[in-house]
Amino acid sequence: MPSDHNARLGHAADRLIASMATTDSIACVGLDPRPELLPPSLIAEARSRHEHPAEQACHAFTKFNFGILDAVAGACAAVKPRAACYEAYGGRGWQVLEATIERARQRSIPVILDAKRGDIGSTAQHYRAGLLTESPGLDNAAAIPGLGADWITASPYLGQDSVAPLIGDVAEGTGAFILVRTSNPGAADIQDQPIGTERLAEVVARLVHKWGADRLGSAGFSGIGAVVGATWPQEAAALRRLMPHALFLVPGYGAHGGSAEHAVAGATERRDGVIVNSSRAIIGAWKAVGADQEFAAATRDALTTMNDHVATALRSTSQG
Amino acid sequence: MPSDHNARLGHAADRLIASMATTDSIACVGLDPRPELLPPSLIAEARSRHEHPAEQACHAFTKFNFGILDAVAGACAAVKPRAACYEAYGGRGWQVLEATIERARQRSIPVILDAKRGDIGSTAQHYRAGLLTESPGLDNAAAIPGLGADWITASPYLGQDSVAPLIGDVAEGTGAFILVRTSNPGAADIQDQPIGTERLAEVVARLVHKWGADRLGSAGFSGIGAVVGATWPQEAAALRRLMPHALFLVPGYGAHGGSAEHAVAGATERRDGVIVNSSRAIIGAWKAVGADQEFAAATRDALTTMNDHVATALRSTSQG
Repeated sequence: MPSDHNARLGHAADRLIASMATTDSIACVGLDPRPELLPPSLIAEARSRHEHPAEQACHAFTKFNFGILDAVAGACAAVKPRAACYEAYGGRGWQVLEATIERARQRSIPVILDAKRGDIGSTAQHYRAGLLTESPGLDNAAAIPGLGADWITASPYLGQDSVAPLIGDVAEGTGAFILVRTSNPGAADIQDQPIGTERLAEVVARLVHKWGADRLGSAGFSGIGAVVGATWPQEAAALRRLMPHALFLVPGYGAHGGSAEHAVAGATERRDGVIVNSSRAIIGAWKAVGADQEFAAATRDALTTMNDHVATALRSTSQG
Repeated sequence: MPSDHNARLGHAADRLIASMATTDSIACVGLDPRPELLPPSLIAEARSRHEHPAEQACHAFTKFNFGILDAVAGACAAVKPRAACYEAYGGRGWQVLEATIERARQRSIPVILDAKRGDIGSTAQHYRAGLLTESPGLDNAAAIPGLGADWITASPYLGQDSVAPLIGDVAEGTGAFILVRTSNPGAADIQDQPIGTERLAEVVARLVHKWGADRLGSAGFSGIGAVVGATWPQEAAALRRLMPHALFLVPGYGAHGGSAEHAVAGATERRDGVIVNSSRAIIGAWKAVGADQEFAAATRDALTTMNDHVATALRSTSQG
């Protein structure tokens, strides 16, 4: 069970900015465990300990995530577990997610839960309870802790009244990254639809800016941020002009073909405000070096390389 | 654990149409358990059996859902558990969802999992595995059954390559209702954005039609349906013209202010193709009659009333 979920101190964006400063990193490590990413030694250990296939998988996922979290602590700005990878393994998978987020909190790593939720207000409150805060018990029973993530990713399709209840008041210290421009090829189907002289993604960007305008932290960033894929660098710069106060969560670096230069294209004039995610290239780094037993070290090395590349790219962005 | 998930026979839409015919109902019962909807007798029993607040809640939710499923079996076309209500209670909540879907399958009630998922293709496959089919075990271990729902609700924001992998091949017998026009007030923020002479919801409707065109069952309906809220009846008729082969899942009847007439406004010329959801008014019906011990009977009565209202409204729709 996660520890005290109300112990978040400060504004969600300020905490993320502080983490970037402390770790000297704008990298986010995607915690997306899949059987094919697990080192054989972990698989063998899980199979020797459990007979049930779901218990085997969840044992190995937990060990894998803990090893990664211990390896990346202090060297990345945040971690981003992808809810789907855990839901795929049912109630046990959800417990792996709980344990993973708890471990991240113990290591002082902010957690962005990549759940892409979006529903009507009363349902958004349930998501908020389960994923970020806590749920009511029966009658007068104690509240039941949720996952305790710091940020969540969310879809804009249902509008403002689906987003606001998801993250509650600014003082509660949780935030949401709203899907604006995703990194997949099919993103164009909806996000490129023309609205006057703009595309839908730009209209959503204006809404994200508006929704987040009264949620600024002391660093000048809002508790409502934006997902802007690394595969559309020109758009990222244009979207930054529409969302000057939004933190950008940038997927698609590495695996989806986005370069470090593309990944930081949405940085502000002050060269900040972007957090770049990488999953497979970091957590599966042991595969490239063939170092099964040393997967944590391989992960740390890959993260260090990513930090260097992204920092170099950020220094070369045009300023002002 | 759900039973054989590959035992689905036939096309997803055909199975839903067959269920409507067998039950003489186009109603969908929303299984959205919340502490305030639980009869006091169930709460008392749960508290006498368990000390842990989460176990109390999940024990009561399971009993509640089972009672409702037994009461509505044979009198509704489908049930629709809302994932958020279960996720709010963590891994234990997920187990309630598993048990609920398994019970529905035992009662031959099709299950529409209201999860509103939407993510890039590789993640959509994970959602598919966890929510509809099964996930791979480690190495050569047996596959791990997912929830085994028949249909899932999904967001269109990431485009076709996020929807197709979610439901797999037609032959696999699963389907998706895509959010087109939701019933909440904030729906207008994005869904009413003007694209030429249309609004975004209409553009999404055209895409849903296109995506589902090669997935028709023998009843003429596609495995890709649409969520069209009961609060916008004029729009429902217009959206029907754009999506002649889509089943419409209609939320917002009763609780959100949509009347029976509004709820069936999206029916085809043959007066079919709509499935109308009601949650609180059905599963919380015992509150209105004050019959705590008889909540299942109150549920069944409320469903019968709804079936009557919706059938009457459907008969009065203009044909052709």
